[in-house]
Amino acid sequence: MRNYRYRGYLIDLDGTLFRGKEVIPEGLQFIEKLEERGLSYLYLTNNSSRRPEQVAEKLRGFGYPAHPEQVVTSSAATARTLVESFGRPPSVYPIGEEGLVCALEGAGCRIVTDRPDAVVVGIDRTFSYDKMKTAVLAIRAGARYFGTNGDLVLPTEEGLLPGSGSLCTAVAVASGVKPTLIGKPEKPIVDMALKRLGLPPEETVIVGDNLATDIQAGVNTGIDTLLVFTGVTTPKEHAGADISATYTLDSLKDWDFI
Amino acid sequence: MRNYRYRGYLIDLDGTLFRGKEVIPEGLQFIEKLEERGLSYLYLTNNSSRRPEQVAEKLRGFGYPAHPEQVVTSSAATARTLVESFGRPPSVYPIGEEGLVCALEGAGCRIVTDRPDAVVVGIDRTFSYDKMKTAVLAIRAGARYFGTNGDLVLPTEEGLLPGSGSLCTAVAVASGVKPTLIGKPEKPIVDMALKRLGLPPEETVIVGDNLATDIQAGVNTGIDTLLVFTGVTTPKEHAGADISATYTLDSLKDWDFI
Repeated sequence: MRNYRYRGYLIDLDGTLFRGKEVIPEGLQFIEKLEERGLSYLYLTNNSSRRPEQVAEKLRGFGYPAHPEQVVTSSAATARTLVESFGRPPSVYPIGEEGLVCALEGAGCRIVTDRPDAVVVGIDRTFSYDKMKTAVLAIRAGARYFGTNGDLVLPTEEGLLPGSGSLCTAVAVASGVKPTLIGKPEKPIVDMALKRLGLPPEETVIVGDNLATDIQAGVNTGIDTLLVFTGVTTPKEHAGADISATYTLDSLKDWDFI
Repeated sequence: MRNYRYRGYLIDLDGTLFRGKEVIPEGLQFIEKLEERGLSYLYLTNNSSRRPEQVAEKLRGFGYPAHPEQVVTSSAATARTLVESFGRPPSVYPIGEEGLVCALEGAGCRIVTDRPDAVVVGIDRTFSYDKMKTAVLAIRAGARYFGTNGDLVLPTEEGLLPGSGSLCTAVAVASGVKPTLIGKPEKPIVDMALKRLGLPPEETVIVGDNLATDIQAGVNTGIDTLLVFTGVTTPKEHAGADISATYTLDSLKDWDFI
């Protein structure tokens, strides 16, 4: 028996539940309604730099109920994908920050610089020529190449800064190998979230503000999507795009659960 | 009266006159014959990290006659292009090594990090996220974007390392702006060499081992080319390519000057 359109929600963070340092109040109400109805939900983020604990803490700071287990990061999905791809935790040379290294170590991967099984690139504010060189030589020597997410830029208060995808591209053109990408809009992060949610795709909806990541993720995995115009994508951009969301809303307060 | 097929030679270095730390003896004979016949020639290199003085010194170390004025680097061509494009020496934020900074300063450009007129990216073994960020913010704020050369990799004894073009690409995808490239196969470096040679294109030939840079430079500028199979490009690759050299030789010793 389905009392609700969807039993599971995979929800984006920045632009959907908050904007930079500001909460989006309709996001709070939305999560409150999910809780009242006993519906399942997870927070899904391409941010690879923070641990789930840190993301949950940030959400709680805005007033959202959030445990670390409710947070799926691109780093966690990358670690999971690596272990599945190799059939065991591989040795990894990571270019990334705390969130990535902790996720890899937590999954049993050994962090090495010499002859790794895999190279993983995520956002790294201490990215350097030497790191790039180590990654490129390892990939040219046969290491498999993964990227946490393809976002070329990182929106910050300073402006649009280089994102994970730009670092991935630098290593890709220098090594001649394109990375397997994990975060939205790719399948691996969604697969991990569905498995944790324990629900089939058809009872799940992806909620986000970004056509190229959130909505494209739904298109790539056959999951319905709800695009909310409180962040990156405008109604005009959505209207002119090749793909479209299952639902669009100006605000999450307008969502009808039944 | 033309006694010789060409009065001017624009000659590549690595793969043509030497290979890494080893001289190519036929290159020495070739330059000797140019000298005997009183023909003009310049050394043309995409290497942006060294000053012309340093390149000439390296060549003399192999036994080549070489003054700094005979060396045209991608850095020198970049500095010249900047001054011409702006009609004056612009302020520049450079990502690069000694050769680039010296060329820019020598052309009267002011090196700045804040609000530069132009951003220039060349090979930089101290490339970092912070440099990338400074470049990207400047380009997004309106600075014009130039790259010394598009070579994605740098052949070294350690293997193929990230080259100037890989760093250019990283800044390009993060800024959303493609650079104006200066080195071979682009026109600016050839234009500068022709001007210094003081000869028309039809009396000049480009000599090199690399189809994608040396020979493509000739195709792009309407200058005849001589491809020598002592470096990067193989006869098979040349045969299967979209472009072709005017002449091909297994060794420079087989060149007939008349």
